[in-house]
Amino acid sequence: MDEFALIERFFAQRAAGRDDVRIGIGDDGAVTSMEPGYELVVVTDTINEGVHFPAGSPPRSLGHRCLAVNLSDLAAMGAEPLWCTLALSLPEGAADWVDAFSDGFMALADEHDIALIGGDTVRGPLSMTVTAHGRVKSGSAIRRDGAGAGDAIFVTGSPGRARAGLGILMDAGASDAAAAKLVEAFRYPVPRVREGCDLRGVASAMIDVSDGLYSDLSRLLRASGVGATIDVDSVPLDEAIVERSGHARALEFALHGGDDYELCFTVAPERDADIARLSGHWNCAATRIGTTQPGDDIAWLGAGDVVLPDDAAFRHF
Amino acid sequence: MDEFALIERFFAQRAAGRDDVRIGIGDDGAVTSMEPGYELVVVTDTINEGVHFPAGSPPRSLGHRCLAVNLSDLAAMGAEPLWCTLALSLPEGAADWVDAFSDGFMALADEHDIALIGGDTVRGPLSMTVTAHGRVKSGSAIRRDGAGAGDAIFVTGSPGRARAGLGILMDAGASDAAAAKLVEAFRYPVPRVREGCDLRGVASAMIDVSDGLYSDLSRLLRASGVGATIDVDSVPLDEAIVERSGHARALEFALHGGDDYELCFTVAPERDADIARLSGHWNCAATRIGTTQPGDDIAWLGAGDVVLPDDAAFRHF
Repeated sequence: MDEFALIERFFAQRAAGRDDVRIGIGDDGAVTSMEPGYELVVVTDTINEGVHFPAGSPPRSLGHRCLAVNLSDLAAMGAEPLWCTLALSLPEGAADWVDAFSDGFMALADEHDIALIGGDTVRGPLSMTVTAHGRVKSGSAIRRDGAGAGDAIFVTGSPGRARAGLGILMDAGASDAAAAKLVEAFRYPVPRVREGCDLRGVASAMIDVSDGLYSDLSRLLRASGVGATIDVDSVPLDEAIVERSGHARALEFALHGGDDYELCFTVAPERDADIARLSGHWNCAATRIGTTQPGDDIAWLGAGDVVLPDDAAFRHF
Repeated sequence: MDEFALIERFFAQRAAGRDDVRIGIGDDGAVTSMEPGYELVVVTDTINEGVHFPAGSPPRSLGHRCLAVNLSDLAAMGAEPLWCTLALSLPEGAADWVDAFSDGFMALADEHDIALIGGDTVRGPLSMTVTAHGRVKSGSAIRRDGAGAGDAIFVTGSPGRARAGLGILMDAGASDAAAAKLVEAFRYPVPRVREGCDLRGVASAMIDVSDGLYSDLSRLLRASGVGATIDVDSVPLDEAIVERSGHARALEFALHGGDDYELCFTVAPERDADIARLSGHWNCAATRIGTTQPGDDIAWLGAGDVVLPDDAAFRHF
């Protein structure tokens, strides 16, 4: 069986899985239904070999990652995952590659109860495009342009871990358990789906940190038309990175590293206490790192030696 | 301005365009709403350079084509187009490439009132993945597995024109007006959107002819669990192809050529008269080419010298 047949089998076996899928894989299109009172959220992201991941990356990780980056976008809107499609460009490949890729994709899909409803598999350089669908109660999607002056700024987890892991990968590979955990953070990012959904009605604005905290928070602030003071010393750093590479490097990774897929969000003063309550049930911390303010000045206090470029466009790899 | 900025401008300018788009391009995801009583139809297709189109193809044609193939899938379900996303992998490119690509994409999008609601632009070998969304009244999507025994089999237009056009392109290029029209058929396929929508409640099964009439009709029949007798002499051939390449070659293109994006559908005997009535308003003919029958035998009567392989998997290019 060639890998196209394998992929088709993989698609077809997973066609079902949700009651709201009327027609799954196997026709020209999928047909789904949505309860009244909800709006549809649609996101799409591509990852390419040599751009978003190194050649020779483990296929299980790629299956996980191409879905995770899309689940992160849904999370950033506060949306509950529903369905997804996968467009896969494959060079000549082996059956075990496809098996492992499918395992990674489906393990994460099952964890978040998102149904694979369609796809396309074509010959070409290794590339995956996922389009994911979610839902929010009408009017409750969390935009990136909703922050007001005086809102608290939070970030989940410890940004910079994926960047540290990529560095280890591109260098000599992981030689101890702490390094291996950072490599895992790059290969198997955890989308903050529950956290994003919990923040509906609480966060005033939200974005996922795909290009680095500095770039993505700056985008949120510009979209919202507010400035901010960010207390750089309060940005939560991963201890293993500090131990391994020093404080300055850990901070640089936290501000400019991408691919962590943490959430960065703002909360009006009166909802501030909600975060402590909610995050008690989360798998990650939520740390306050600053406050928005009127105007468009963004002050990164205490950044020290870390370069803060005007246009810190993160290049993934 | 680099081509990423251009693409972002192109995306952003076109974010609006439909009342049912609540949040368009510019956030982590798009938010849309759908009236009660409808189901969502989701399709996705990728086209890659060197696989689905030759290197150096006109960018306007690629913009048209990557959307057209998805509109054709919506048409094959009988769905009315609503929204789409575009994931574009671009090597180093020029601004005029992006302009022409966008023009081709948007001209077709506007024609069918489909709104571009999101996308991703990344560095990589030239590739486009579109995911398109449409709607049908609940329960009215046209499946490929609904044909019963005794149904009439129809095809729209004259299949084989795109294959003839590709042959001309790969050979010496078009040297006269008739040849140029066939090249146009390959570069600017016309998705049968109106025809597909008109067939809701009329066709018992439908598929779009992306891989060739022989393969795709066989798929429809297998999915429906019926056999058929196809009168190959009644398959409508394009006169310019017959004149240029002879009857046998024109028939081969009609049966095994892909990328035409005509519709092939079945109609129960009592609805047969509806086709003459409907197709009077269409931009293309609908020609009866056979009849389904019990069992799983598929007889292609009069195929003559045209090879009918067991597994006629069309390779696009």
